Amino acid sequence: MNLVEGLLSGNRLALTRLLTQVENDTDEGRAALTELFPHTGKAHLIGVTGSPGTGKSSLVNQLALHFRKQEDRRVAVVAVDPSSPFTGGAVLGDRVRMRDLAGDPHVFIRSMASRGSLGGLAQATAGLVQVFDAAGFDIILIETVGAGQAEVEIARLAHTTLVVEAPGLGDDIQAIKAGILEIADILVVNKADRPGVESTLRSLRSALELAHPVRHVFQHHGQVEVVEAPDEPIYNSWIPPIQQTVATEGTGIAELVAEINQHAEHLRQSGDWAARERSRLGSELDAMLQEMLVARFREQVSEARYDEVLEQVFQRELAPWEAVKMLLNGRLE
Amino acid sequence: MNLVEGLLSGNRLALTRLLTQVENDTDEGRAALTELFPHTGKAHLIGVTGSPGTGKSSLVNQLALHFRKQEDRRVAVVAVDPSSPFTGGAVLGDRVRMRDLAGDPHVFIRSMASRGSLGGLAQATAGLVQVFDAAGFDIILIETVGAGQAEVEIARLAHTTLVVEAPGLGDDIQAIKAGILEIADILVVNKADRPGVESTLRSLRSALELAHPVRHVFQHHGQVEVVEAPDEPIYNSWIPPIQQTVATEGTGIAELVAEINQHAEHLRQSGDWAARERSRLGSELDAMLQEMLVARFREQVSEARYDEVLEQVFQRELAPWEAVKMLLNGRLE
Repeated sequence: MNLVEGLLSGNRLALTRLLTQVENDTDEGRAALTELFPHTGKAHLIGVTGSPGTGKSSLVNQLALHFRKQEDRRVAVVAVDPSSPFTGGAVLGDRVRMRDLAGDPHVFIRSMASRGSLGGLAQATAGLVQVFDAAGFDIILIETVGAGQAEVEIARLAHTTLVVEAPGLGDDIQAIKAGILEIADILVVNKADRPGVESTLRSLRSALELAHPVRHVFQHHGQVEVVEAPDEPIYNSWIPPIQQTVATEGTGIAELVAEINQHAEHLRQSGDWAARERSRLGSELDAMLQEMLVARFREQVSEARYDEVLEQVFQRELAPWEAVKMLLNGRLE
Repeated sequence: MNLVEGLLSGNRLALTRLLTQVENDTDEGRAALTELFPHTGKAHLIGVTGSPGTGKSSLVNQLALHFRKQEDRRVAVVAVDPSSPFTGGAVLGDRVRMRDLAGDPHVFIRSMASRGSLGGLAQATAGLVQVFDAAGFDIILIETVGAGQAEVEIARLAHTTLVVEAPGLGDDIQAIKAGILEIADILVVNKADRPGVESTLRSLRSALELAHPVRHVFQHHGQVEVVEAPDEPIYNSWIPPIQQTVATEGTGIAELVAEINQHAEHLRQSGDWAARERSRLGSELDAMLQEMLVARFREQVSEARYDEVLEQVFQRELAPWEAVKMLLNGRLE
């Protein structure tokens, strides 16, 4: 079976096989991505990120269910767990949690544990997303476990990024990061029936105020200048709404989906959809360039030579920057 | 003032200035690292990682206090926050929390928020650690906020890695990651006076059992083979102890420090100290090589040419892998 043709004609086995090829970054996977690329660019990519314990998985489950049943969209889920770098196994429970959608050919869930480098993970995720996009999935949910930089980099793949919080997750200062808020298009307070929800909402509102100020205050040579904030191109007048949900009961899901659709509409009207696509493809290109450059270097420098230089560094005879210059500058035997 | 000489003779201002140069990756910073490199390799690097809400900062504070006051060691703390990639500010409260040690010239704390790429962050951390090492700090605590892959990569800098947990941080499955456990040399259950501590300990013990099995089960062509686990070189018979602490009250800190010292002793006797140094320096060298390769590529390809190729990708006229090949293969105008 030609996997690319199979995939484009809706064959599920071809889809599964291609996902594996792409995840493992095989030559066949790369060739397929190249063939499939002209068929991509149609799906709405939705990133879902947030700390452990916020109930992201249930939320993603409910979103998939709603998009599928109420809006008749084809839904793919890519669940990425960057904090399991060694075991290589998928997130516990992921594979069984979509029982409500089992057997529906228009829903597909794929879990991916971390594989070596972070760059590799982001690249593999981008590849899987392209396969789903080319296969005609309308909605692609990219779920990341955790709220570190890894997750931020993966969230950058998305058109719409949901940041999920929940009441009572330890210190608010630590749980609600300004950095993570700045990537949020929609804030979700899940488990909103729990005690402490008011305090979480308050913290989020004041953090939002910081992240999306109506004024900028500049300090320059001791002078303070207050300037009305221009519509920054990346946000372009979109102020992230805060949506409360109780995913386990389906509460707030319809409202959340409405906001997601509004955000997509906003992106298209403001021109930000194209801007995000361009920035996403740019990052992808950079990651690939980097990989190829390193691969070429490895071909040019023998392993023995590399080990020899590393040993000199280990012996403190050579500083790392000197070693790099030596390896790069002509002494390539 | 010559900063390198100043630093080596114990000048604190020279230290502060060099840390800034290195963090900003200036030419002066790189030159200084090269000069300082022969003076490094003496400090005990201790990584402290774990989810938000576990009380890592208090724990690090207490460890620094104990190493300083009870063991008369010179202590540096590098606090890294990879989840604030945009604001560039330091972790709230970090700068004030060391009041117990204020004015002591043999303690130094440096906070660092994320700066662009993750690779850049790990590299900057490695640089700061080298400066402290050369300056004669005996103990360097590297604290990371969060428990994602970013933190894992930074933890790899350390000789001894502490993974901190606390009772009641949401789903145990999510909070206690097998992946993160595999990098732990010592497990700390902080806030051990809280309800739920027994359940946390139980989860950790069974997760440890998975991460450090006494037997390996191999499956090969349908045959199941059970083999006694050899002493794997990286662990070399070290089974991570679980230490309970209540950092805010100082409970368990002396015991934890004893275990940290035992681990250092174990590393030295088993030869793992050298193995970890070698692997650490190898990663550092790789990251630098990658950076230099990308910088060289940027010099060779004009921005206009790059933008033109990116636009073709955006228009779906060219797939990313094709674009990379085109940029790399001679068409470098």
